[in-house]
Amino acid sequence: MRRRAVPRLRDVGEHAWLARLTRRLAAMPASPSVLVGPGDDAAAVRAPRGTVLLTTDALVEGVHFRAGWLTPRALGARAFLVNASDVAAMGGTPAYALLALEAPPATPIAVLDGIALGVAAAAGGAGARLVGGNLARAPRLALTVTLVGTAAGRVVTRTGARPGDLLFVTGVLGATGLAVRRLRAGGHGRLPAPPLRLAAGRALARVAHAMLDVSDGLVQDLGHLCRASGVGARVDLARVPVAPACRRAVGAAAARFAATAGEDYELLCAVPPARASAVARLGCRVTCIGEAVAGPPHVALHEGGRPVQVTRGGWDHFR
Amino acid sequence: MRRRAVPRLRDVGEHAWLARLTRRLAAMPASPSVLVGPGDDAAAVRAPRGTVLLTTDALVEGVHFRAGWLTPRALGARAFLVNASDVAAMGGTPAYALLALEAPPATPIAVLDGIALGVAAAAGGAGARLVGGNLARAPRLALTVTLVGTAAGRVVTRTGARPGDLLFVTGVLGATGLAVRRLRAGGHGRLPAPPLRLAAGRALARVAHAMLDVSDGLVQDLGHLCRASGVGARVDLARVPVAPACRRAVGAAAARFAATAGEDYELLCAVPPARASAVARLGCRVTCIGEAVAGPPHVALHEGGRPVQVTRGGWDHFR
Repeated sequence: MRRRAVPRLRDVGEHAWLARLTRRLAAMPASPSVLVGPGDDAAAVRAPRGTVLLTTDALVEGVHFRAGWLTPRALGARAFLVNASDVAAMGGTPAYALLALEAPPATPIAVLDGIALGVAAAAGGAGARLVGGNLARAPRLALTVTLVGTAAGRVVTRTGARPGDLLFVTGVLGATGLAVRRLRAGGHGRLPAPPLRLAAGRALARVAHAMLDVSDGLVQDLGHLCRASGVGARVDLARVPVAPACRRAVGAAAARFAATAGEDYELLCAVPPARASAVARLGCRVTCIGEAVAGPPHVALHEGGRPVQVTRGGWDHFR
Repeated sequence: MRRRAVPRLRDVGEHAWLARLTRRLAAMPASPSVLVGPGDDAAAVRAPRGTVLLTTDALVEGVHFRAGWLTPRALGARAFLVNASDVAAMGGTPAYALLALEAPPATPIAVLDGIALGVAAAAGGAGARLVGGNLARAPRLALTVTLVGTAAGRVVTRTGARPGDLLFVTGVLGATGLAVRRLRAGGHGRLPAPPLRLAAGRALARVAHAMLDVSDGLVQDLGHLCRASGVGARVDLARVPVAPACRRAVGAAAARFAATAGEDYELLCAVPPARASAVARLGCRVTCIGEAVAGPPHVALHEGGRPVQVTRGGWDHFR
């Protein structure tokens, strides 16, 4: 018996696939803010109030993921969530998403559908809408999501941390870094979904001097915050919140691994001590890992009072 | 004598390049609407008034361009302009651009600088700002620009054309299609820059029932307009405005070539005859090429009163 052929992008064509997807997206519950949804030259939305946040981030096959690491839906959701993490880190709320897809002609239509509907569903779960996008031919799958967010109150940047500020991180670290290491080594499993720290981001924005999301590894991202703010940082590795799976798998070196593994998409912020009590009521775990100190931008790691060296701070995809 | 090595992305690293670019962009004249520019988790801008337009479009090496077809600056400008064309086709004005770059580690830093500064300069030329972006490792260069625009007045979509509407196209067609054909065949030369039809787009938006930009070829894009509006179209090939270079190179078949070549980024719109006089004062060439007719969505081409068949309507990158 012949297996039925899987319909692929080259069989259906760009325009037919986009037209079908547009119909599926149009069938979702309407938003009064969306005046023109997917399918035209541009989406048109009502101007939001307050401050508008704009961010874009890409997932490239072979670099950020490999086939089998994620279902198409989870991949689409991930492309949305890594952008939502940037909006959360500014204290904002996602509103509108665009998906620029690159795909080889042999990509199964089901994969493209899964990705687009994964973005749309994740956007919906965050109170946002997928309003448009693009499809381009390319040698590998790549998803670039652009997210438009809003911030009703204060926008928190990476600058502004001061000596004496306490450094807090949400959630636990190292679980995704561990999964990536296992998957790269040929192991089985799926990449955990990034957390959605929108409520925490808005709450932290009210008290933090500086904030960013941890995507390249805690030590490296803290270094970005230090450089932008002109401060140093002292981190107690024993206080770094390590994911239980990472603790079990890596053992004694788990905190060092978790502090440099990357892909966590948790929030890292600098909060003046007088306002630190507000951090307790975030609705998610939050841990004080150290403090900002005077001096040139640097990150000093300690464990049990002794300085610790790590061989790398985190990810630079090009070095 | 040894030639000095060209600095490449893998030598400099993602973060150092982004930090340097961010400083260069920050040195450009400030805009009071931009609260947080490039370099943080997200850009923050003041909410514009009226309607917000959102569009995204990608240029992928080997698909939309090849090395040598464009200088890095012209490539960056092109990535902006193809998006500005979508905003123009809605009757809007570009405001904020984001550039998501994909690049191999061996990409010369000068190429990346040229691309980013090309986007920034083209944005500036259109009254817009490059406010953020992303850099990801990938096997080939790819530029995804997302553009946020504003529309003070009416937004014009692809729907709304009615039988009897006159069909107008701005500028001339076929020059870029001809350049692409020559370059693909190994010839020398550069890809012409897309036109910037913002003023024309805003003026046409006041009178047109429907509008889009011609990116995949006049016949194919007119087909999109017909399907979206539920009308047919009758086009007189003899009236299609053909670029002089295309006329000289292609001869008798120039109009057919120009009507299907694509990459023109001119505006195509359906205007009720009573308002057609307003089209004369656009500040650029504009030509009536036919009319919308009742019936199922279709595009009928005529030349000297006789029907003409074209073997393809335009580009579908996947078929």
